[in-house]
Amino acid sequence: MKSIRIIGLDPSLVTCGWGVVEAQGLKIRHIAHGVIKPNPKMELHLRLRELFETITDVIRLHDPSEAAVEEAFMKNNAASAIKLGHARAACLLAGSMAGLGIGEYSPRSVKKSVVGTGAADKAQVAHMMNALMPGCGVKAGDAADALAIAICHAHRVKAAGALFRRVS
Amino acid sequence: MKSIRIIGLDPSLVTCGWGVVEAQGLKIRHIAHGVIKPNPKMELHLRLRELFETITDVIRLHDPSEAAVEEAFMKNNAASAIKLGHARAACLLAGSMAGLGIGEYSPRSVKKSVVGTGAADKAQVAHMMNALMPGCGVKAGDAADALAIAICHAHRVKAAGALFRRVS
Repeated sequence: MKSIRIIGLDPSLVTCGWGVVEAQGLKIRHIAHGVIKPNPKMELHLRLRELFETITDVIRLHDPSEAAVEEAFMKNNAASAIKLGHARAACLLAGSMAGLGIGEYSPRSVKKSVVGTGAADKAQVAHMMNALMPGCGVKAGDAADALAIAICHAHRVKAAGALFRRVS
Repeated sequence: MKSIRIIGLDPSLVTCGWGVVEAQGLKIRHIAHGVIKPNPKMELHLRLRELFETITDVIRLHDPSEAAVEEAFMKNNAASAIKLGHARAACLLAGSMAGLGIGEYSPRSVKKSVVGTGAADKAQVAHMMNALMPGCGVKAGDAADALAIAICHAHRVKAAGALFRRVS
């Protein structure tokens, strides 16, 4: 059975998490994870560029064929929502420009997919990442959510029977 | 006196306006304008990519050294705010990746700069664009706001005495 490599992205202008996993049937292998923290003193367009360029570099290095991006959580605060929209667009554009297939998942569906409940907290998500991929050493609030987003996508793609598609 | 060429961008996922002007002292010359309307049936990442790539093409064709992007209007609706954030990021990234200096201006300051009042409506903005640049033929609700954003930036850059700077 062939494997599929996925980059998960947890968009934020402050700390953007990324995680790459490889899925082969029911097996999940950890490839790499990290966070991108643009200097908050930089102008907005330069922070967006840092997100876009770093994600593009990670994609070149780890060569995933699919990207999974967390959907916007509809906050009541319009100012926060616009900032989140900026960060999401940088993530989506980096994946799309690299020719990856893109999936978008709500925070709730990601948690339900990896922990079994949409109400799971960050510590539970990180715990499950370390249980599924022993030795990955990801911490809560680090890139654990991004790895969970990638695994959620692996489950969905597998369920849809659409493994190995590549959208340009 | 040397001239400066500016692209103004009015971000939207539905109808994104762009306008290029050349400013030389007090003189403003119309170069080109247009709108980008990504197919609403396309996935979000493909719509953002169409914005990004079309703006990049316009920049290559008309070779501005500066970009001016309308600032987010803080709507109460968080869902609309996220969408606007997506479109703004595509505009900011296209300008930034092309090495342009970037300015951001609120809708109110743009209208005040070109019409004299922050409460001007779209028809007044379009009327003023045609008065400042006879023959440009821009219509209200078309790319008139984008041309106004570019002219607002020309005024600010001139006032700041920072003409001809180029930020990479």
